[in-house]
Amino acid sequence: MSSQPRIAIDAMGGDEGVPVMMAGAALARRRHEGLRFTLFGDEARIKAALDAHPNLRAASDIVHAETVVESTDKPSAALRKKTSSMSMAIAAVKAGEAGAAVSAGNTGALMSMAKVALRTMPGIDRPALAAMLPTLGDNDVIMLDLGANTECDTDNLVQFAVMGAAYARIAFDLEKPRVRLLNIGTEDMKGTDEIREAAAILRGSTSLPMSFEGFTEGDKIGRGDTDVIVCDGFAGNVALKTAEGTARFVTDVLRRAFTSSLRSKLGFLISKPAMHLLKHHLDPNNHNGAVFLGLNGVVVKSHGNADKKGVANAVHVAARLLEEDITRRIAADMAGIGGATSAHMETHAK
Amino acid sequence: MSSQPRIAIDAMGGDEGVPVMMAGAALARRRHEGLRFTLFGDEARIKAALDAHPNLRAASDIVHAETVVESTDKPSAALRKKTSSMSMAIAAVKAGEAGAAVSAGNTGALMSMAKVALRTMPGIDRPALAAMLPTLGDNDVIMLDLGANTECDTDNLVQFAVMGAAYARIAFDLEKPRVRLLNIGTEDMKGTDEIREAAAILRGSTSLPMSFEGFTEGDKIGRGDTDVIVCDGFAGNVALKTAEGTARFVTDVLRRAFTSSLRSKLGFLISKPAMHLLKHHLDPNNHNGAVFLGLNGVVVKSHGNADKKGVANAVHVAARLLEEDITRRIAADMAGIGGATSAHMETHAK
Repeated sequence: MSSQPRIAIDAMGGDEGVPVMMAGAALARRRHEGLRFTLFGDEARIKAALDAHPNLRAASDIVHAETVVESTDKPSAALRKKTSSMSMAIAAVKAGEAGAAVSAGNTGALMSMAKVALRTMPGIDRPALAAMLPTLGDNDVIMLDLGANTECDTDNLVQFAVMGAAYARIAFDLEKPRVRLLNIGTEDMKGTDEIREAAAILRGSTSLPMSFEGFTEGDKIGRGDTDVIVCDGFAGNVALKTAEGTARFVTDVLRRAFTSSLRSKLGFLISKPAMHLLKHHLDPNNHNGAVFLGLNGVVVKSHGNADKKGVANAVHVAARLLEEDITRRIAADMAGIGGATSAHMETHAK
Repeated sequence: MSSQPRIAIDAMGGDEGVPVMMAGAALARRRHEGLRFTLFGDEARIKAALDAHPNLRAASDIVHAETVVESTDKPSAALRKKTSSMSMAIAAVKAGEAGAAVSAGNTGALMSMAKVALRTMPGIDRPALAAMLPTLGDNDVIMLDLGANTECDTDNLVQFAVMGAAYARIAFDLEKPRVRLLNIGTEDMKGTDEIREAAAILRGSTSLPMSFEGFTEGDKIGRGDTDVIVCDGFAGNVALKTAEGTARFVTDVLRRAFTSSLRSKLGFLISKPAMHLLKHHLDPNNHNGAVFLGLNGVVVKSHGNADKKGVANAVHVAARLLEEDITRRIAADMAGIGGATSAHMETHAK
């Protein structure tokens, strides 16, 4: 890697295309002065989009990519597209030419490519997909895994906790993030064997830079009393999607209600700032895309329908994780896991 | 069982106490003319509460219960309280003196007692906890399991589908309820082996009185395109609680926003009918408590903080399931599961 941190951008991913990816990267560039970029995609379109962003152009190299991973491509098909902008961005991280990659493309394809090309870092059995969800507290909550691993064993959950805590320390500037395991109750005997065992290991690993606070439940995700929530990818995916669906459900019911009578219509107009605030709170563009943790290199997935602010957030997260060297931090933290685990991990490690 | 359907009511459960349980039962009685009740609990308090409800008093027998299951009792402790109102109500179902039991008490205790006393019906390996969630469609959606079984195998999921469909046929008056399995994607290869195998079996069981429509995801629970959503108890519990938490989160954000400025305050006053409708939509009292399916007898859990309308809904559901003989229906339906399963089930049946 060159002395200056560099981010590989898949300029072609996302519903909004090259101009939005470039506008987002340009926005992020303003917050990270030393940051450099390699932009992968259709050279002509990238060049055209850069006309509006001289600051980004000055900090970027462009690498032409022949093909694009489509949102409908299966991961297996995407993996074969070696000349796609996504593949090439990941390859740049693998080759050490960039420290992080950002893409707004096909999540399944990105996850597969990143896993195959970058491989899991030492001490980590499986990568996890982490994202931030809004809370009523001071900061968002980081939740992982959100779907990279349908089933998880005890070690996976412990490793996710370590990775999530490292992410939270950087993203929220906390010394000891509060970490909880998602469960179906808060009593010690609740949940699967894997969850109970992971809790025992985390409780015993007192030197870890986190405050492990036991179990939480689905109704407490947004309460703001936890910085990192750890779960297997099935439960995480169900929780994330249920939260999205319910938020949409509630706003749909409200919209119907507000348009059902003249009196409500008037109320709606007057209350527009309130609805705006709600929208702001729930808008994925105000959160930071999803991060793949546990790989030899940082990979951030921006929302497919993100606007330039959303893309900028994703690039900003990638830059922060790179600047703070999250991979090294996770490796260091893994050494702090309690004695009971070390043996356990030796048996299970690949 | 006597010729007239009879429901055993645990008069002591619930945060609101005897008067609300009695008021709810009295309300339900008006919708079910032939229905009779046995009321278990403190005789003096039940008699006092019945003064306001002569219609219920005329249809009820009172059986004094010495003790009460507390909300803090562990299931193991509750099981030993043989003279509790909850135990005695379940025992009445076991003895055939009542066809159904309704309680607003400790869910874990009720579940354990019902399982131990009533046992699972022939062909069913494990009971499931089912509840209704609001949707944007014509009817609510029935979701199961919601926490009775932390882990489930293929047969459990198939049986839950059959039980949920039987419940939906009665509750929504549908011939072929639309049934889906909760998953982390809708493509065939998504999810665990158990979920994919259950889908294959249900797809092959074309004579079942349901329309099996594949997978659904957490964000589509409230969409109204499904009548029954089947999942293991872990995922179900996470989804249910996440939906509750998110709805509360959104309304909290709105409340804060509405009270943040005079203009919004005015809007809030004018929009009160809209917020009222939302509250109505999300109010658990408008839904029907939770039903334990798969036991030799109907057991309905009313919400702990239900008002009389909530209790009436729970009693109404119990009465409907009893009148329509859901246990017999489920047994009949189990015979319709595709050939692939019969063998599968013989191997796996206890």
